[in-house]
Amino acid sequence: QTSFPPFILSIIVGEILRLNEDPTVHGVALHLSENAYSNKILNAVKPEKDVDGVSDVNLGRLVRGDTYNCSISPTASAVMELLEKLDGKKVLLVGTCGPLEASLQCLLQRKGAMTMSCQWKTQQLQSKVNIFLCQIIRSHSATLQCILSKLMKLSPTPTCTAFLNSAIWIWLNIHIVLHFIFPFRMNFKQANKISSLSEIFSNLKGKSTVTIGLVQALTAHLNVNSFACLRQPSQGPTFGVKGGAAGGGYAQVIPMEEFNLHLTGDIHAITAANNLLAAAVDARILHESTQSDKALYNRLVPVVNGVREFSSIQLARLKRLGINKTDPGTLTADEISKFVRLDIDPSTITWQRVLDTNDRFLRKITIGQANTEKGFFRQAQFDIAVASEIMAILALTTSLADMKERLGKMVVANDKNGQPVTAEDLGVTGALAVLMKDAIKPTLMQTLEGTPVFVHAGPFANIAHGNSSVLADKIALKLVGEGGFVVTEAGFGADIGMEKFFNIKCRTSGLVPSVVVLVATVRALKMHGGGPNVTAGAPLKKEYTEENLQLVADGCCNLQKQIQIAQLFGVPVVVALNVFKTDSHAEVDLVCEIAKQSGAFDAVPCNHWSAGGRGAVELAQAVRKAASQENSFKYLYNLELPIIEKIRIIAQKVYGAEDIELSPVAQSQISRYSKQGFGNLPICMAKTHLSLSHQPERKGVPTGFILPISDVRASIGAGFIYPLVGTMSTMPGLPTRPCFYDIDLDPDTEQVKGLF
Amino acid sequence: QTSFPPFILSIIVGEILRLNEDPTVHGVALHLSENAYSNKILNAVKPEKDVDGVSDVNLGRLVRGDTYNCSISPTASAVMELLEKLDGKKVLLVGTCGPLEASLQCLLQRKGAMTMSCQWKTQQLQSKVNIFLCQIIRSHSATLQCILSKLMKLSPTPTCTAFLNSAIWIWLNIHIVLHFIFPFRMNFKQANKISSLSEIFSNLKGKSTVTIGLVQALTAHLNVNSFACLRQPSQGPTFGVKGGAAGGGYAQVIPMEEFNLHLTGDIHAITAANNLLAAAVDARILHESTQSDKALYNRLVPVVNGVREFSSIQLARLKRLGINKTDPGTLTADEISKFVRLDIDPSTITWQRVLDTNDRFLRKITIGQANTEKGFFRQAQFDIAVASEIMAILALTTSLADMKERLGKMVVANDKNGQPVTAEDLGVTGALAVLMKDAIKPTLMQTLEGTPVFVHAGPFANIAHGNSSVLADKIALKLVGEGGFVVTEAGFGADIGMEKFFNIKCRTSGLVPSVVVLVATVRALKMHGGGPNVTAGAPLKKEYTEENLQLVADGCCNLQKQIQIAQLFGVPVVVALNVFKTDSHAEVDLVCEIAKQSGAFDAVPCNHWSAGGRGAVELAQAVRKAASQENSFKYLYNLELPIIEKIRIIAQKVYGAEDIELSPVAQSQISRYSKQGFGNLPICMAKTHLSLSHQPERKGVPTGFILPISDVRASIGAGFIYPLVGTMSTMPGLPTRPCFYDIDLDPDTEQVKGLF
Repeated sequence: QTSFPPFILSIIVGEILRLNEDPTVHGVALHLSENAYSNKILNAVKPEKDVDGVSDVNLGRLVRGDTYNCSISPTASAVMELLEKLDGKKVLLVGTCGPLEASLQCLLQRKGAMTMSCQWKTQQLQSKVNIFLCQIIRSHSATLQCILSKLMKLSPTPTCTAFLNSAIWIWLNIHIVLHFIFPFRMNFKQANKISSLSEIFSNLKGKSTVTIGLVQALTAHLNVNSFACLRQPSQGPTFGVKGGAAGGGYAQVIPMEEFNLHLTGDIHAITAANNLLAAAVDARILHESTQSDKALYNRLVPVVNGVREFSSIQLARLKRLGINKTDPGTLTADEISKFVRLDIDPSTITWQRVLDTNDRFLRKITIGQANTEKGFFRQAQFDIAVASEIMAILALTTSLADMKERLGKMVVANDKNGQPVTAEDLGVTGALAVLMKDAIKPTLMQTLEGTPVFVHAGPFANIAHGNSSVLADKIALKLVGEGGFVVTEAGFGADIGMEKFFNIKCRTSGLVPSVVVLVATVRALKMHGGGPNVTAGAPLKKEYTEENLQLVADGCCNLQKQIQIAQLFGVPVVVALNVFKTDSHAEVDLVCEIAKQSGAFDAVPCNHWSAGGRGAVELAQAVRKAASQENSFKYLYNLELPIIEKIRIIAQKVYGAEDIELSPVAQSQISRYSKQGFGNLPICMAKTHLSLSHQPERKGVPTGFILPISDVRASIGAGFIYPLVGTMSTMPGLPTRPCFYDIDLDPDTEQVKGLF
Repeated sequence: QTSFPPFILSIIVGEILRLNEDPTVHGVALHLSENAYSNKILNAVKPEKDVDGVSDVNLGRLVRGDTYNCSISPTASAVMELLEKLDGKKVLLVGTCGPLEASLQCLLQRKGAMTMSCQWKTQQLQSKVNIFLCQIIRSHSATLQCILSKLMKLSPTPTCTAFLNSAIWIWLNIHIVLHFIFPFRMNFKQANKISSLSEIFSNLKGKSTVTIGLVQALTAHLNVNSFACLRQPSQGPTFGVKGGAAGGGYAQVIPMEEFNLHLTGDIHAITAANNLLAAAVDARILHESTQSDKALYNRLVPVVNGVREFSSIQLARLKRLGINKTDPGTLTADEISKFVRLDIDPSTITWQRVLDTNDRFLRKITIGQANTEKGFFRQAQFDIAVASEIMAILALTTSLADMKERLGKMVVANDKNGQPVTAEDLGVTGALAVLMKDAIKPTLMQTLEGTPVFVHAGPFANIAHGNSSVLADKIALKLVGEGGFVVTEAGFGADIGMEKFFNIKCRTSGLVPSVVVLVATVRALKMHGGGPNVTAGAPLKKEYTEENLQLVADGCCNLQKQIQIAQLFGVPVVVALNVFKTDSHAEVDLVCEIAKQSGAFDAVPCNHWSAGGRGAVELAQAVRKAASQENSFKYLYNLELPIIEKIRIIAQKVYGAEDIELSPVAQSQISRYSKQGFGNLPICMAKTHLSLSHQPERKGVPTGFILPISDVRASIGAGFIYPLVGTMSTMPGLPTRPCFYDIDLDPDTEQVKGLF
């Protein structure tokens, strides 16, 4: 027998009675487990305010005397209809326990109500999160406050306080998103199943919705534990061209606004850490240039309260320099000089400042022009924050200790002898780790249908490695358990996102994926088949709105190539065709047919955008079947190969290039990195995502091209060599009419408009 | 009868039995209400692990067989002694209800345990927050996880789930700080009591500790409801010269690490909003310069799905332009031109980019030097984020609607006709409001002794207005109720912080302070009396470590002047002398004597740093007495006076200048702002905080100086005119040995070191 303790019951009843008299409340919906219903509660609600969203047989009479009798089971459509009527009205939902009705809840969420639930068959997560207490259209504060204040008048008992705290927790959760905290020393078992998501063409929203639709189908419809691992969107594109990245339609992450805005601040933490290091580099050069060894030493190792001591990071530096002394008074002049001078060569600085804003005017700047900087100006740039090496570290790290070590190893420049200068040399490792200590924790969110989602690390697989985090994947794998699925996003096509997923991320994590899901759209394939360019804002050309089998067939060469790329790694491929309403049956069938002929394990159309998880059931079934296949996963190249060979293998086998061509700069960087002992790292190519080649306009499967490597950098902390293909901008710009024109906040309801 | 439900009891017992066998756990402390103790629990703990921190008569036998019998009441000293022994050991505290023992809890917190409590005599807040579940030395995750997982195995009942959620809530709270959410439409009653805090000399830590010591004394020792309103520290100084700002010793805000790091991300939100606007300004100039009217119009008002519509922010702009049309097809060529062209004059841009990092190389930069920006480079600068006008708005706003309006009104530049161009003209108001929607909510924290603290808005009263927020003050006033006290920080001396508090913040809020608390230190007064300079790192000169009554007496001229400044506003002044261990009795007495002779209502020494609230009881009593006095509060100047007159009044009456001298730039800016209709705004001076004059090295009470006004800017959204006195840097730099050398993270315990 599950029921509320009497005093809570009486509070709920009292609150209902108050709401009966409150003219601003249009309906009261009670969502309680069946045996928690007492006549007391049922009788308390005035008939005209009764919106009983709980029992299968009586979905309730409605708002303001407008009786709405609905005796069907709470399928999505029935509840939807009910809720259409509620739209804009205030409805209070009080408490709950026992299994939640997914469809009701999911649709409440669509209306702006915030609930936290989980459709897992195990009760593991479910019991953690199955209280909800909220209002439609989010004017929760006032009513919630009222309940709270009543509860507070009672003498506190453990139950009452616990109940209260849970209410606060939920309240909190509504606004700031649960920052999921996990012990990092979990003993991760090797994964059973992991799916990686890649898309064929990047500028269509598809990857995220497929990820979300797939886990919704797996969990809410096929009763399989699943977890989606997504990347946190950058604010640059959110306010620039692209808009949000929470998925779309009935396949979304909620609360969508938090997802698309600051969330739990991970990207801000990266910005702060990245820029502290940048400031430290320039300040150090200035201080070394304007002070004698002695003055530097006195300032770096000052007398504090009569005592002169090295800090632990300074002791570590002394050790690296081969000076085994701990008393600052005993260093020789030569040792002092070695200790105080990093001798950074300003022309070799590769560490750039970052901002999470599309600010094209910061692409190339001159810094240090104030008089106070004494003429030490130099050319520099800002990158978009997600391109920071610290973001790559966040995605690849496996523990706090590992992250701290990687942060310390980041190379910011060379000294005048050509030796690498690191964050550790600048004494900033600890501070960077402190700034990143919370960002390392994945953020737990959920889909519209209650499937759990981890959000961690960032996008931009063209200029970064752009995968979701190893930690999120590992924790999720642990949570889904035997037979469960983790679907992790690997952005931007098989040629970039997937290749990096396999060669960099899988190598770091040791995880082996069971299936690759390749996302395709008819529109993208038509474009690869020679269709006209699509311009944002301009009406779609008829090639894309009318059936055109020839264009589709021609474009499938790109799909075929992407499937082949995935097969290079020995993992079965399922093609998910994201169906648009303009796609004809014949077009959809044709794509699936060609995909299967090209070696895909299966190819299925998906309708999750319009139908939620239900629309991706076929995909989920295909993924389950593919995951049960034998799997002969292998990397594309051995780390021991020379850097240049590894680049060539990627260019030829993945991109289809004839060969590569290195600029003199690239050549000298490669030989420097090899000499510095960084030759055995994997490769993270910076290449356009709009073509398999380096030229965005070359669609289909370009051949016979020579891939130009203009520069090569090293992300030693993240652990990869970073060749730049052609000219790649690392800072996007704002268009003439940025997304922000449509974004607004209603100050009365706190509702965000225009963000999607 | 208050007790745990049986199933929770059995879990606790089970957990205790497990801990008995765990060699890494050195002691188990149970903090439960007396009647919740069952023999089951008491008998479960192995004698050598028993750390019973609950009953008055038996503070418990201790860790590892080292029996510690303590039969005294849990005064601070006894508990302290107990805890000294526990240091470095893992101790688990489980559950609680009923009134908490303040002293125990406070000291647990000092040891790194995180608890949330409140010593208010009303139960209002207390009942909200009196569960705690934590471990000393913060290795909570593992054990907590273990309890949670056991709970989760039970079938969920409301009690269990609520308990669980509360545990999660606390867990959450430990890591991310409760983001306190309040309905903004509260009907604020006029304050009864509000104290404002100012300090005499800014570079000594004093203001924050006095604020905290004072509320600790008021609430934990005098049983008066009180609330402290502090500003969120900037990361710049935290990692630069100053270190954290959470107070110190036994007068601290906790969790101190969160307070000094990202907290709930308000400053990051300001950075994001500020820089989005900056990017929009430059991108717009570029787009207007490179496109025809028609191209601009087609892009700004595109055809989407066959329909062409103005967005609401564009309709608002049309209205401002006097074009009363809603159909994009009907605008004349002239109207289109007016609509699409803001015609920003790049030389008049006053909107700067910001970062919350001390990055001196960004003080003067050239932006837009990449080829993609087509030669539109210009000189610009980065300011420290807290100097952003958006921070000033956050501090002064009273509601979401008001904030949105202020954000829209911010002037970023003039057009080529000399008319102001605003954020609203750029179409970015809504996006800025969305970015700031959570930042507007004050963050609730607490002192070491459990007094509630709101943290909101930012510091830097020299280059900003630097006061804590109006919203935090108002909510706090509501919460403390009749007879309660709100102590709000107004940083940097009576000449800057307090003057701005009165003339800007009080004008906006309509709140009238009851008392001014002026913070002084013997060391600062000696410096004003002609003592030698104090250099960070160098040992203190003997003038400061030995008694020197003459220096103190000479320096009191500055204290006297500060008291007189406060009296200009008609509010009684209490001087709080922050006592250091090197201060002699005679010195302390002398300062208090002179302060009282100079017109202070009272002057008392404080020892909160070493003794917590107990050390500030005398101050609290003086403040209470002063607050009961008649109060004849008045502003220093009328808003209707010309800008130049208002500046002169501040310079003469507050700073003691003979007159002011305007540069030609300042003169022309003033006449422009007056013409633009901004003449009736209050004045926010940007002046050094190191002297009453504009010259940092002039200590004491300088006279006969002419105050140079080098430039005048306008913060129209915040609502003030912003004259720059002499050369004021708006971006600090990193010293040769920044604070970050000592900051580190222990990856095993997640403990932050060196941040204070």
